[in-house]
Amino acid sequence: MIVLPEKIGRQTVKITGGVYIEASAGVVGKKEGEGPLGNEFDRIFEDGRMNEDTWEKAESQLQKHAVEAAMKKAGKRPEEIDLILAGDLLGQSMGTTFGVRGLGIPFIGLYGACSTMALSLATASLMVDSGAAENVIAATSSHFCSAEKQFRLPLEYGGQRPPQAQWTCTAAGAALVSKKKSPVSAECITYGKICDLGITDANNMGAAMAPAAADTIAVHLQETGATPQEYDLIVTGDLGAVGSKLLYELLQKDYGIDITQRHTDCGLMIFDMKDRDINSGGSGCGCSGAVICTHFMNRLIRGELKKILFVGTGALLSQLSPLQGESIPSVAHAVVLKGVKNK
Amino acid sequence: MIVLPEKIGRQTVKITGGVYIEASAGVVGKKEGEGPLGNEFDRIFEDGRMNEDTWEKAESQLQKHAVEAAMKKAGKRPEEIDLILAGDLLGQSMGTTFGVRGLGIPFIGLYGACSTMALSLATASLMVDSGAAENVIAATSSHFCSAEKQFRLPLEYGGQRPPQAQWTCTAAGAALVSKKKSPVSAECITYGKICDLGITDANNMGAAMAPAAADTIAVHLQETGATPQEYDLIVTGDLGAVGSKLLYELLQKDYGIDITQRHTDCGLMIFDMKDRDINSGGSGCGCSGAVICTHFMNRLIRGELKKILFVGTGALLSQLSPLQGESIPSVAHAVVLKGVKNK
Repeated sequence: MIVLPEKIGRQTVKITGGVYIEASAGVVGKKEGEGPLGNEFDRIFEDGRMNEDTWEKAESQLQKHAVEAAMKKAGKRPEEIDLILAGDLLGQSMGTTFGVRGLGIPFIGLYGACSTMALSLATASLMVDSGAAENVIAATSSHFCSAEKQFRLPLEYGGQRPPQAQWTCTAAGAALVSKKKSPVSAECITYGKICDLGITDANNMGAAMAPAAADTIAVHLQETGATPQEYDLIVTGDLGAVGSKLLYELLQKDYGIDITQRHTDCGLMIFDMKDRDINSGGSGCGCSGAVICTHFMNRLIRGELKKILFVGTGALLSQLSPLQGESIPSVAHAVVLKGVKNK
Repeated sequence: MIVLPEKIGRQTVKITGGVYIEASAGVVGKKEGEGPLGNEFDRIFEDGRMNEDTWEKAESQLQKHAVEAAMKKAGKRPEEIDLILAGDLLGQSMGTTFGVRGLGIPFIGLYGACSTMALSLATASLMVDSGAAENVIAATSSHFCSAEKQFRLPLEYGGQRPPQAQWTCTAAGAALVSKKKSPVSAECITYGKICDLGITDANNMGAAMAPAAADTIAVHLQETGATPQEYDLIVTGDLGAVGSKLLYELLQKDYGIDITQRHTDCGLMIFDMKDRDINSGGSGCGCSGAVICTHFMNRLIRGELKKILFVGTGALLSQLSPLQGESIPSVAHAVVLKGVKNK
């Protein structure tokens, strides 16, 4: 019997043909390596420049390393990969295009800001489920220095960061998606709408992204008929402390949904939250990229978690938009990941 | 019988379930409106600022207008659209995110630089073919002023442009893809690999993109078993005069393929080539976006063309990469469009 991806709502598609995360990898910088998840990452780079002469090139190296590590774990060469779906925060996705340039893999560039790991994983799962591709890599990256330089202040300025600010992770994640039976499967995806409640503080990404996370979670639960209790965890990307609190309030107030007993956020996990530099938590594409592709995949593989809803959250501001007085639109995409051990 | 997208090679997928371009639209600025295709566009904006206070916001308006025009032609409201796949040249796809923000349509951001119309059309076709979505919009935009400001010199500087330079189109294109029987169908897609032959002149996009176009065309013909003669036209996005000549040379030299009798380029069609400002031709995401979504769709609808291979071409440089001494990677994605009248 041929099974197709099954559209079960406007935004939600069930993956029906058996799609697996064959392998995944996450690589990080020094500060992330010193955090509570330090021993889970595939590689920790002590040198934030990675022997490159610019931060952007260092980010490209980071993404390349994550992609190559995921391929290596699966024993696959670049020629065996049909597609790579990837993107990052930098203008014209510079971390990605220069990172994957030398691999010779057909390339779909994605833009979802910090939701990119969920967006790429969701779309890779669809590509594989539909038969359009066999082996697909989903990847993303971010670098503290390239992001700060682009979106906020020159690093040398050493500006003080407000308590609602988040620390962009120097990190990358990559997952190889295929139909090869593996311990973690992709079960369902929900693409998000752009939401904008008018937040204009470029230091408050959590508040900007919370409405998109709330919308996507509410739509997902409604279209699948699931309750939060059906998931061991609902894992958002990088809302941090401020954004997570707002997410609870929005879901409760607008939809009557309580996820407080089921929720965690990669941005609250990757750093030592007592580190005062971190403020509201970690952020950046690589935050959920690295945490999902290592820590959560590991827990699903080990059977500690049965089913999670991963909700990547992205703030779609540009380098210029805050300077032009614009508010910060956001988007969130979701993927259900299941530990096959528990089927 | 359920039919799936049929993978017929590493990079090529046949669309088998009947996927159509239900409606499409292209809108342009004044200079494009004065070009040879002027009477084909859905709207010509005399004011390049479109009543906005920045060029970036003007570009967002342009893309929004194209998307709304395509929906209007199909008699569809935003709530009836499952997905919009779109992107542009600006950092963090600012033209797109702020352009489509208010529509409430689930959003997948794409990055393919000037190949975005082909990338979005290809991916929209796959989404519809697989059943993952019913009504999908593919869209893109570019604006001369936002692009020049970002990639080259301040407009006020009035720098002289070399003969290999191209003129970024102020234009946007949008297509609504669905299974509703319509006069133009999407038949096959080929995703491209990133190519980089070491071009470093940010004024010579044609030369940077020609290798990617050659690679994608050669792979497409090889994986489908087609000859150039099976297409009425092979339409590249925006190689311009310099890039088109290089494309012929690369295809002849590396693959023994002659497309000279079948090839045209949107960048050679949108402007009056005698206009000395234009130099090597038009460029920008909106160039092929607007020309494919109006002129070529119209000719396919009227039966003047039976089948074309549309090859969108993108230069994946970033705002920073030339300043960091980097060469210009490029990518090309292809879609086969067929006039159903001629089936």
